[in-house]
Amino acid sequence: MIVVSADTLRRQLSSIFSSWGVSKEHVDQTVHVMVETDLRGIDSHGVGMIPAYDKHRQEGKINPTPDIRIVREKASVALIDADRSLGHPPSLKAMRLAVEKAKKTGIGMVGVRNSNHFGAAGYYSLMAAEEGVIGMAMTACSSPLLVPTFGREPRLGTNPIAFAAPARRNKPFALDMATTTVAFGKINIARRAGKPLPEGWALDEDGAPLTDAQKAFGLRRLTPLGGTRELGSHKGYGLAAMVEILCTTLTGSWFMSRDPETGEQGKYNNIGHFFLAIDPDLVREEGEFRDDMDRLMDMFRGTPPADEGRPVMVPGDPEYAAYEERKVSGIPMTETLYEEVRAVAEASGVPFLLGN
Amino acid sequence: MIVVSADTLRRQLSSIFSSWGVSKEHVDQTVHVMVETDLRGIDSHGVGMIPAYDKHRQEGKINPTPDIRIVREKASVALIDADRSLGHPPSLKAMRLAVEKAKKTGIGMVGVRNSNHFGAAGYYSLMAAEEGVIGMAMTACSSPLLVPTFGREPRLGTNPIAFAAPARRNKPFALDMATTTVAFGKINIARRAGKPLPEGWALDEDGAPLTDAQKAFGLRRLTPLGGTRELGSHKGYGLAAMVEILCTTLTGSWFMSRDPETGEQGKYNNIGHFFLAIDPDLVREEGEFRDDMDRLMDMFRGTPPADEGRPVMVPGDPEYAAYEERKVSGIPMTETLYEEVRAVAEASGVPFLLGN
Repeated sequence: MIVVSADTLRRQLSSIFSSWGVSKEHVDQTVHVMVETDLRGIDSHGVGMIPAYDKHRQEGKINPTPDIRIVREKASVALIDADRSLGHPPSLKAMRLAVEKAKKTGIGMVGVRNSNHFGAAGYYSLMAAEEGVIGMAMTACSSPLLVPTFGREPRLGTNPIAFAAPARRNKPFALDMATTTVAFGKINIARRAGKPLPEGWALDEDGAPLTDAQKAFGLRRLTPLGGTRELGSHKGYGLAAMVEILCTTLTGSWFMSRDPETGEQGKYNNIGHFFLAIDPDLVREEGEFRDDMDRLMDMFRGTPPADEGRPVMVPGDPEYAAYEERKVSGIPMTETLYEEVRAVAEASGVPFLLGN
Repeated sequence: MIVVSADTLRRQLSSIFSSWGVSKEHVDQTVHVMVETDLRGIDSHGVGMIPAYDKHRQEGKINPTPDIRIVREKASVALIDADRSLGHPPSLKAMRLAVEKAKKTGIGMVGVRNSNHFGAAGYYSLMAAEEGVIGMAMTACSSPLLVPTFGREPRLGTNPIAFAAPARRNKPFALDMATTTVAFGKINIARRAGKPLPEGWALDEDGAPLTDAQKAFGLRRLTPLGGTRELGSHKGYGLAAMVEILCTTLTGSWFMSRDPETGEQGKYNNIGHFFLAIDPDLVREEGEFRDDMDRLMDMFRGTPPADEGRPVMVPGDPEYAAYEERKVSGIPMTETLYEEVRAVAEASGVPFLLGN
């Protein structure tokens, strides 16, 4: 494992995006979200995405100089067209607008269409919570991975739901979850380790449970949260479909992302996102919500544990712990990713800054 | 199994609620929601709740003559105090107000505090979809049942999420799910049948998986959706906590429902609800959303099935099928429930109308 400092990683990513012709403002925004995500320990959604972003750029899916526009706006909702931008800048704009509307009318919702991968959904919901409001963020995905209950082919992405809420003494409650049982990265980790998968993570071509990690990696068929019908996979499928409706159907990204007849990916991987903000101080008396959030989070942490050495946590706790550690010790990277970043730097014609 | 007609059931329920001193308007509203729920096949949340409602009334938890008031209102949000009403009338008022706000500003959110059991969450989200807008409904619960991941005692209810969206050719997409792996009623069904539970539904006093249905029925400790940590129970716990935040913390129902120190149920079981509506015609051009919903639902139904005899469904399909059948054949009731309704009628001093 190689460890790099957040500063070095910022410089490396900035030089790569700048070489693609991305504006300084968009570079700074994108790099900030990516490095914060790595600091929070969400390795799959920070620098780990740079090889995919480079591939999408080369395929023409990412427009380095987009015209990001609000195409429709009402008192409490808006729709942004991202013009095939990197996903992070239009998402920051969208969540800022949702928060602004929430502070005026109580709630704000902003959809984004014609976008790309936006990093970790939890970044945007936490951004709202840090402004003192409740935040939600969801995104559709470009690759089908989730197999609907009773089906045998994937029809949805891992369609994540992120939700954050501010407290007073506690750091914000911060949930960020795929609606599949596990993220695809976990299949890859098991494959590399040569371990079988637990039953309920992946499916074979016939829709039957698959525990062979190598085969599951090739087939790319994940179960919805719940894993099996008996354990509620129809609920995970329902939630993933809800995310698709809010991100794709509500924003009009449909025709860009999937063929309506076959469900196959279309020519572009441009995808839609959904951002929501609620100002609790316009619903209750000012400050009461934050105080009660502390009481709720304290109650969760005070739940008697099944195992004395493993306390009950609140969503967000593992990421806050990673952040404290990585701010000091730096961001660990696998050899593979390190070499992939080197290759992207070379392909982009910029120096490799991560060392050695 | 006894079968009663919807009309007879309506008359029986109306006579019971009227005898409690509930106004005609509130009786009509409550009975309508309950019988529609039975027609949709959601047996646990219609007439099946009448013994519990009668118990709550006798305990003084339900106020038959409430003053249901909007206590706070902004352009796109509002908070309703239900004054310990039966849960259905304030919930109908709340969703109507959310829809009205959505049609003006794009989105509307209404919270309800100081309420009681409101029936099936899916009734209210579908109500929004029938008005042409996207609807969400959630509720907190009075009894702790869900054990947080790594814990051994319940700290949340089954905290359901309902989401509905209108299409054009298709009936609305209609998801309504508990955030526990299964509803408590399924434990009872297994207990009556003398069958063991699948591992992942319930827990024992130590937080370990429990398959003894009789014991699980007594212990009342359900897993969050996901069932085990390995299959993602932390996601179900996170979703249930999100529902609690939106229904309880955001509405200020906290002190009424749980002791903040211990998490124990308080003196009253008054609970909070959350209603959201989004008008897709204020986000996209008019009608485009409905057309794309048809395409999405068609795509789901067209997923190649694992078993040719069992097609992929869309959330809501089983309830629509039950509705068509029960409209004609009537509502089936177990002998136990039939006798329980007779007992409630007697305790309320009204004739038993269900037969014989």
